[in-house]
Amino acid sequence: MATTENFVPGLEGVIAAETAISFLDTEQEKIIIKGHNLIELSQTKDYLDVVHLLIEGQLPSETEKVTLEAKLKENYDVPSTVIDVLKLLPKQTHPMDGQRTGISVLAGFDNNIDDRSLESNKSRAYQLMGQLPNITVNSFRILNGHAEVAPNKDLSYSANFLYMITGKVPTELEAEIFDRSLLLYSEHEMPNSTFTARVIASTQSDIYSALTGAVASLKGNLHGGANEAVMYMLSEASSVAEFEEVIYKRLEQKEKIMGFGHRVYMKKMDPRALIMKESLKQLCEIDGDTSLLEMCEAGEKILEKEKGLYPNLDYYAAPVYYKLGIPIPLYTPIFFSARTVGLCAHVIEQHDNNRLFRPRVNYIGESY
Amino acid sequence: MATTENFVPGLEGVIAAETAISFLDTEQEKIIIKGHNLIELSQTKDYLDVVHLLIEGQLPSETEKVTLEAKLKENYDVPSTVIDVLKLLPKQTHPMDGQRTGISVLAGFDNNIDDRSLESNKSRAYQLMGQLPNITVNSFRILNGHAEVAPNKDLSYSANFLYMITGKVPTELEAEIFDRSLLLYSEHEMPNSTFTARVIASTQSDIYSALTGAVASLKGNLHGGANEAVMYMLSEASSVAEFEEVIYKRLEQKEKIMGFGHRVYMKKMDPRALIMKESLKQLCEIDGDTSLLEMCEAGEKILEKEKGLYPNLDYYAAPVYYKLGIPIPLYTPIFFSARTVGLCAHVIEQHDNNRLFRPRVNYIGESY
Repeated sequence: MATTENFVPGLEGVIAAETAISFLDTEQEKIIIKGHNLIELSQTKDYLDVVHLLIEGQLPSETEKVTLEAKLKENYDVPSTVIDVLKLLPKQTHPMDGQRTGISVLAGFDNNIDDRSLESNKSRAYQLMGQLPNITVNSFRILNGHAEVAPNKDLSYSANFLYMITGKVPTELEAEIFDRSLLLYSEHEMPNSTFTARVIASTQSDIYSALTGAVASLKGNLHGGANEAVMYMLSEASSVAEFEEVIYKRLEQKEKIMGFGHRVYMKKMDPRALIMKESLKQLCEIDGDTSLLEMCEAGEKILEKEKGLYPNLDYYAAPVYYKLGIPIPLYTPIFFSARTVGLCAHVIEQHDNNRLFRPRVNYIGESY
Repeated sequence: MATTENFVPGLEGVIAAETAISFLDTEQEKIIIKGHNLIELSQTKDYLDVVHLLIEGQLPSETEKVTLEAKLKENYDVPSTVIDVLKLLPKQTHPMDGQRTGISVLAGFDNNIDDRSLESNKSRAYQLMGQLPNITVNSFRILNGHAEVAPNKDLSYSANFLYMITGKVPTELEAEIFDRSLLLYSEHEMPNSTFTARVIASTQSDIYSALTGAVASLKGNLHGGANEAVMYMLSEASSVAEFEEVIYKRLEQKEKIMGFGHRVYMKKMDPRALIMKESLKQLCEIDGDTSLLEMCEAGEKILEKEKGLYPNLDYYAAPVYYKLGIPIPLYTPIFFSARTVGLCAHVIEQHDNNRLFRPRVNYIGESY
C-alpha cells in the first residue's frame, strides 16, 4: 500500500539540512552568509573576502587575503589532459557540459581522492577555485574553435577571469563590477545545485562528484540557465517599445518570463538585483548607451503591474555581463564558477556531519 | 532568524516524490515495480522484460521483447570520441569517474539535447542502455591499460555484457545469473542516486546531466560502493574461521560492516539478497568450492546475533560477481549500468510532471 503521508512537490518549505553557512531570512529579506549580510559585504568587501569567509569561517586579515589570492594563483593551471579532452568534444557540446566533463576528468588527478578530511577538502576547494576560471573559459573557447588562453597572474583573481573571457585587461571599474557579480553569486542557501551537491556528498562521494552533479543541475533553465535566457529575451528587442512587445507577447502566451520571482523570498526586488542594477547604470554612464537599462526597467514595471513579480539577480546580472563584453553562453558557466566556493563549503559541512539522504515516495502506480 | 521547523537528517521518512514507478512496501516487505513484485519477476522474467516494464509501463509481448533487444543492440556502439577521451584519463582514475566522464561526453553527441518530450527521452533511455555496457567495460579496460573489446551482437544483452567483462562467452547458467543480478539492481524506489537524478532533472536539465549526477552519487561507499566493500572484506579471509575473525574485529572497532541493513526496510533479509544467495549456491555447486558461501553464511549469523542486522542485495551480489569472474572494481559500475533503466524512468516521470526541488534549511550559524 502507498503511504498516505503529506507530500510537498519540490520539497517546498521542507527543511533538508542544518547549516551554519547561509540563510535566506524571508522576514527581513536578508541574505545571511556566516552571520554577515551579503548585500553589505558587496558594498565593502570583495569576492576573495567572501571566499575566505565561506571556507575559513571569518573575513580575512590583509595578510590572510594575500595568502589566499596566492593560493588560488598557484592553482590556475589545469592538467594538459583536461585541455586535450575538451579538444576532443563535439563542437556542439553545451558549455555547461564542457565544464562538467572538465571537472569530472580532474578527479583522476587527485592522488588522495579517498581522503574526506577537512584539510584535504579545503585544499581541494582552493584548487578547484583556482582552476575553474581556466576550465570555464577554455572549454568555451575550445568548443568555439579558438586557441586556449593562459591566465595572467599579474591581475587580481577576478580581473584575470574577466581578462581570460574577453581577451583584454579590464578597466578598474569593469573588474570591480565583475568581482561584485561573483560575490553576489557566491552562495545562496539551498538552491537546487547546492542541494544536489549535498545529496551526492552524503553518500561519502568526493567533492568532484558533488560538483559535477551541481553543474548538471545548474545547467537547467529553471535554475542557472535563467541568466542566459534573460539576455536572449533582451536581444530580441532593440528599443523599449520592442521589448515591451516581447514581454506582453510572452505574457499572452502564458510563457514563463525568466529573471523574475524566486521560490523562497521576494515580496520585493531581490536585493542582489538592485546591486547589479546600480552596476548596470555605471556601465551605461561610461559608454553613454542607456538602452539596455531602460529596457530592463520597462520590463520590471510590466511584471510588477501584471504579475506582482520582481526581478531576481539573473535579470540584472545578464545585461551587466553583456555590457562587460561576455559571450552569452558563458553566463551560466560563470555563475557556476562563482558558486564553486559556496558548493565546496556545503560539501565540507556535509562530510563533517553526515547523514545519507534517502527520502521516501508516495506510490501512485498500478495496484498490487 | 532561523526557522524552527522540524528537521529530519537525511530526509529520513520524508516523502520527496509521487511516483508510479516503484515502491518499497515495508509492511509486506515487498519491492513493487509498476504493480509487480520484483522478486516474482526475478523468478519468471528477465532483465529486458523489466526494462520494457519500466520504460513502456507493461511487460512486453514476445514481439515487443525482440524489438526491444534489437533497439538496444543498435545502440551498442559508442562514438569513438568517448573511447579517445577515456584513453586520455590518468590510469589512477576511479572506474566510476571514468563511467561518469564517458556519459558526460555523450551529451555532446545528442543533436536534439534541448528536447524534453516523452518520445525523445525514451529514445535516449534505450540509447544509453545500449551504450552503458560498452562504456562501463571499456572505461575499466582502458584505465587498466587493456585494449577495448567490441560487443558481440550474437549474444543476448546480458550475455554480451558479461562476455565483454570476462572476455569469454558465458555458459547459459552464468548468463542467467548475471541477468538476474541486473534485474534485481534495475530499480529500487528512491535511493540517493535516483533522488539525485530527479533533483537534477527538476531544473529541466537533461537525462545525461541526471545520469552523471547519479553515477557521482552511486560512487559513494554509503551507497553503490558497498558491493565492492563486501568483496574486499571477504577477500581478507580464506576460511570461515578467518572471516569470523575479520567480522568480530570490525565489530570490536565499531567499524561499519558493509552489506547489512537498509535505511528503509528489512526486519528480515533483503528478498533480493535471498535470490542472489540461491545463485551463489548454484555457482558453488558447479565449481565444487563452497567456501565463499560458507563464509557469507557465517557472517550473516554473526551480524544477526550481534547487531540484529540482515544482509542486503550487495552482500550476496558481491560473491556472485566474484564467482562469475568479474573484477571487483567493476561491481559498482555494473550496478549503475543495471540501474540506468530505473534512473531513466524516474527522469522521464520527473520531466513529465515537474516541480523544481528547492528545500529550505535550519540556520545554525553565527547570529546576525
